Amino acid sequence: MIRIDMQCIWFSGLARIVITASALLASEVFADRVLADEGMWLFNDPPRKTLEAKYGFNPTDQWLEHLQRASVRFNSGGSGSFVSSDGLVITNHHVGADAIHKLSTKDTDYLKNGFYAKTRAEEIRCMDLELNVLDSIEDITARVSAAVKPGSSVSDAFRARRAVMSTIEKDSLKKTGLRSDVVTLYQGALYHLYRYKKYTDVRLVFAPEQAIAFFGGDVDNFEYPRYDLDISFFRVYENDRPAKMSNYLKWSSSGVSEGDLVFVSGHPAHTDRMDTVAALEFIRDRALPLRMRDIFRREVLLTTFGQRSPENMRRAQDDLFGIQNSRKALLGRLAGLQDPAVISRKRVEEENLRRTVARRPASAKATPAWDQIAASLRVWGEIYDDYQLLERGAAFNSRLFQLARTLVRMAEETAKPNAKRLREFRDSNLESLRQQLFSKAPIYDDLETVKLADSLSMYEAAAGAENELVRRVLAGDSPHARAARLVRETKLDDVAVRKQLAEGGLKAILASTDPMIQLALMVDPPARRLRTIREERVLEPQRRAYAKIADARFAMLGTSAYPDATFTLRLAFGVVEGYREHGRQIPPWTTIGGLYERAAEHHNKKPFQLPHGWARAKDRLDLNTPMNFVFTADIIGGNSGSPVVNRGGEQVGIVFDGNLQSLVWNFIFTSKQGRATAVDSRAIVEALRQVYHADALADELGR
Amino acid sequence: MIRIDMQCIWFSGLARIVITASALLASEVFADRVLADEGMWLFNDPPRKTLEAKYGFNPTDQWLEHLQRASVRFNSGGSGSFVSSDGLVITNHHVGADAIHKLSTKDTDYLKNGFYAKTRAEEIRCMDLELNVLDSIEDITARVSAAVKPGSSVSDAFRARRAVMSTIEKDSLKKTGLRSDVVTLYQGALYHLYRYKKYTDVRLVFAPEQAIAFFGGDVDNFEYPRYDLDISFFRVYENDRPAKMSNYLKWSSSGVSEGDLVFVSGHPAHTDRMDTVAALEFIRDRALPLRMRDIFRREVLLTTFGQRSPENMRRAQDDLFGIQNSRKALLGRLAGLQDPAVISRKRVEEENLRRTVARRPASAKATPAWDQIAASLRVWGEIYDDYQLLERGAAFNSRLFQLARTLVRMAEETAKPNAKRLREFRDSNLESLRQQLFSKAPIYDDLETVKLADSLSMYEAAAGAENELVRRVLAGDSPHARAARLVRETKLDDVAVRKQLAEGGLKAILASTDPMIQLALMVDPPARRLRTIREERVLEPQRRAYAKIADARFAMLGTSAYPDATFTLRLAFGVVEGYREHGRQIPPWTTIGGLYERAAEHHNKKPFQLPHGWARAKDRLDLNTPMNFVFTADIIGGNSGSPVVNRGGEQVGIVFDGNLQSLVWNFIFTSKQGRATAVDSRAIVEALRQVYHADALADELGR
Repeated sequence: MIRIDMQCIWFSGLARIVITASALLASEVFADRVLADEGMWLFNDPPRKTLEAKYGFNPTDQWLEHLQRASVRFNSGGSGSFVSSDGLVITNHHVGADAIHKLSTKDTDYLKNGFYAKTRAEEIRCMDLELNVLDSIEDITARVSAAVKPGSSVSDAFRARRAVMSTIEKDSLKKTGLRSDVVTLYQGALYHLYRYKKYTDVRLVFAPEQAIAFFGGDVDNFEYPRYDLDISFFRVYENDRPAKMSNYLKWSSSGVSEGDLVFVSGHPAHTDRMDTVAALEFIRDRALPLRMRDIFRREVLLTTFGQRSPENMRRAQDDLFGIQNSRKALLGRLAGLQDPAVISRKRVEEENLRRTVARRPASAKATPAWDQIAASLRVWGEIYDDYQLLERGAAFNSRLFQLARTLVRMAEETAKPNAKRLREFRDSNLESLRQQLFSKAPIYDDLETVKLADSLSMYEAAAGAENELVRRVLAGDSPHARAARLVRETKLDDVAVRKQLAEGGLKAILASTDPMIQLALMVDPPARRLRTIREERVLEPQRRAYAKIADARFAMLGTSAYPDATFTLRLAFGVVEGYREHGRQIPPWTTIGGLYERAAEHHNKKPFQLPHGWARAKDRLDLNTPMNFVFTADIIGGNSGSPVVNRGGEQVGIVFDGNLQSLVWNFIFTSKQGRATAVDSRAIVEALRQVYHADALADELGR
Repeated sequence: MIRIDMQCIWFSGLARIVITASALLASEVFADRVLADEGMWLFNDPPRKTLEAKYGFNPTDQWLEHLQRASVRFNSGGSGSFVSSDGLVITNHHVGADAIHKLSTKDTDYLKNGFYAKTRAEEIRCMDLELNVLDSIEDITARVSAAVKPGSSVSDAFRARRAVMSTIEKDSLKKTGLRSDVVTLYQGALYHLYRYKKYTDVRLVFAPEQAIAFFGGDVDNFEYPRYDLDISFFRVYENDRPAKMSNYLKWSSSGVSEGDLVFVSGHPAHTDRMDTVAALEFIRDRALPLRMRDIFRREVLLTTFGQRSPENMRRAQDDLFGIQNSRKALLGRLAGLQDPAVISRKRVEEENLRRTVARRPASAKATPAWDQIAASLRVWGEIYDDYQLLERGAAFNSRLFQLARTLVRMAEETAKPNAKRLREFRDSNLESLRQQLFSKAPIYDDLETVKLADSLSMYEAAAGAENELVRRVLAGDSPHARAARLVRETKLDDVAVRKQLAEGGLKAILASTDPMIQLALMVDPPARRLRTIREERVLEPQRRAYAKIADARFAMLGTSAYPDATFTLRLAFGVVEGYREHGRQIPPWTTIGGLYERAAEHHNKKPFQLPHGWARAKDRLDLNTPMNFVFTADIIGGNSGSPVVNRGGEQVGIVFDGNLQSLVWNFIFTSKQGRATAVDSRAIVEALRQVYHADALADELGR
């Protein structure tokens, strides 16, 4: 599952994405770089020349704009597309899973059993889902740069830039009514303002059983051949009616053929392709190992919690699938960085660039950039572990704590002028933040307690039992007893209490006797100190240095380079194509018939157990229908659910994964073996009609 | 499962045992210390006074000797007892599991499906199992102490002591033909020579299905009430015939009743009850957190490997069960040390002792001991991580590497005189070592590769990619590629090759082109350097300091204190008694009927799925038969399989576990809630007859 793990963003900031390069053959990795279908291109700077030269394809402005407006961002972490004039949205099952899980109870486990609203009245409103559709992009680099006075200190520069960004966003929101986000591109060389139409009334229409959506489970995740129906449907509403769409994708009844040129329009979340070698080494030696420890620990914790009863497993499973997905993805990424071929290639590229920069007087400013980045990483290294524990919250793995922190900081920050606030509390973001804060999604005390107890124990071990803050946090209790008391005594599971505290502002927060609020208040000053150090001594110097390197690259290479992924809309392209592995040719597609064979191979046992409906439908299904296919486009976590379209702009598939060999794409692209994986549009229709008897839904596609 | 995790001994030296104190109530922990049935007593110094005073019981010398000679040590990590004159031995299923796993193949999975030899001809010889029966104990403290010259350096003292111990053992073996081990008691205050009769022809007689032996799996492990038939039977042979026993236990047909006094005769492996507070803090802050990381990582690795196919799971399952057992046990132990009530009690005791010592001129020598131990821990802290990686081998998690290291070191060490060798290569131990080294137990290349690749990757992350030894170990490959090559190219999976190398001595080793031998040779010098630092600057100073503390204790308290556990035979006692938990009274026993209820509660799903034979036998079984019971005796990992006997010396049960509240016993004993768990002798007979139709075996018990 190439999904974004949103919890991980909050949690560690590393695994912003969810995509292993276990068997990279050094000699094969880089053989095809020149011809590769590389790039996550900006919609306002598409790769026209390459498409023309390589494929003889010239997308019109209309073609691009239509695709842009039919593309959807799931703020919970993923992509999707409009596929009917009545606001019907398709995305992956694993992208919708968070919303589906929140709508499930012990007696209505839609995640496990699936869901289908036969009529619009049966569609269920999601608790806190927000969808965004990109309306426009504006280059505001000049305005952002002008706000930073030449010669200002890094601290002043950071604050000035943050201030102007928040002001631009607020002004834009006021003027247009659209969600407005300043996006930093090329690590700081360019700033673009992205405006989005926002949908917050989003209703669940259809989800298959998780057993078929994620057929093969963790075993087959990121592997190929695959047989997954990783889809779900939602519908956006406005004024309690299905929103009317003028831009939605036609549904292809003919799907794809080998060699077809296809496009992906979606929201890749994060890549580290521009990172210096020192930065990659930091990821390899510090960031990923720490993150893996945390993942292994949490995977075991959630597994043992889940094994106690089916209801425990239901409560834990969305967290658990996310963690397992991150584990497989990040192990692959670590394997990539531990492959000497990868890092030495990066080293050669960097040395070449540095030599060139040194020779060109026009690039003189970039000369010290690499050393400046290395220096910032030393500062980052000093605070890294503490930052993960306190500011990213690894020490307090609990939804209730997250809510407490948000309430505390929202009270503190909204008392300041917009331009001076922490980024996430800028005026233009408050509505989205409140939707999360006041979500009625269930909170399970038992799961909260074991997660919090486990993370407090880990915190005590990491920081030391004698650490002053550890002692204050534990308040004389053992980690388990402290967690149990905090979860038992807090009232934050009540949305009304959260609303009251939010409305009461800083005064209400400071007067609160809620122990979770008091804990968040206690942890806040040291956490903020770490954040300030990171912002001013790590991020700002890096932003400046990377901007200089990017400028030098522009000067040398023109604009033929695409920026690293930023969870904003990008266009990728590639061809439907198999690959060779262990001496065998892997065909580009699988069939529904292959699904039944794979289940039989594994005696129809988990995670290869077919849902009953599929077992019954076998005779009705056309077993030759293509099910999943692979292609060479450049994708990454966040692209999950992205539409795959053909030259004619018809949706021929939906991205849901990459293979093991694609996991290194976080750092470097190669399509020798690396592939994106999609569900074929024909399998979707065949399943809707023959397995789910959802003809109304199948009929609506593309209409 | 309170088993010893032998791999962990080799691996990390921490989890020498396998036994959480998740819900210790501070006020309840210590309420009963004075009256508690505490102690793992030496057979040559039994707690006669306490037994007389508290229970009016006076064991005769004959009673004690008979119990001693009927008790069996499983060198793979556990205890057992002789239960017939024909050499029949009973132990836990989880103690026998290692041997059973080695006898299993894809087509004969005895671990999963169980095994019963209806005739002696069908009994299968185990591959490398060694059983020991304690013959005699001799106090050799004076001779050991005399070997260390007063005023000698710690280095000289360590070597002199090691030399005299190896010499004593060699002389004793030569003289008596018995396995002879010097045992360090009270951390260095006393030295006893233990002589054992050794059995190496051990054959599998009976094992139930793992699903009933470990009913409830990881969920119910260390919990209570329980319903496990955790037993297996072996038979010792001499000269190809069943060994004739004059000492074996009578089998009780009446079992136990509430309030009965019972005894445990077994081999508790390791406790840390005499540890100073500084040593406990080291365990809490350094040792356990590092060990937990390793366990979480390996648990996820083995789980994902196992999920790929039933055969993968079969290959990994013995490792996996061991790891899961360690995880639950060690988390409980960590929870105990993170409970402020536990550590503060230890602190008060230590302060009291130190004050008393300071006041008594006769104890003056002990005054600096605590600071000396703290100083040794600082040295230990400096090398701790590297020691785990290199000397304990965490960086090379592979059976093939272990074999290579043993071959390399055996060649190096046996070239030296006996008295100068590393302890494990002393003459008196070589036969046991060779049995392990030349074991025909299967080695699975696929499992070896994933384990080695994972640990090499962890090593690279821990020591740094630029570390000189890391670079030499990886030899320019990625961790995965390097592991795959090592496993593919080594010939050490062939017993004949191992024998050839062992016979060829150092010359053959140095000339070997086997890449695993070369790797072991490369890693050996730095690993040995760490070992020397530990022996001379950590262990020897600790031995001296702890001996002084122990002497001071003797002087004050007499010999009323028992030594920490040393995987040697000990006598424990207690009564059959329930306890209160969460306001409910937990009865001391469960019944076979309760087993069926628990399975039904969980819809007969793993790990609560009853084997078919049990489902079919329900009507034949007396459902009121007691199945498991709890009692207050002081046990720990290594006691698994120990006989529970009544005043008459009859076997009434077999120890297989402790409850969650007993996990803190590693550091401190309390029987407020902590309990040992046993299988009732009546359930064993009932199951043998009614479920397994093993009447011949049932008839043999106690005859």
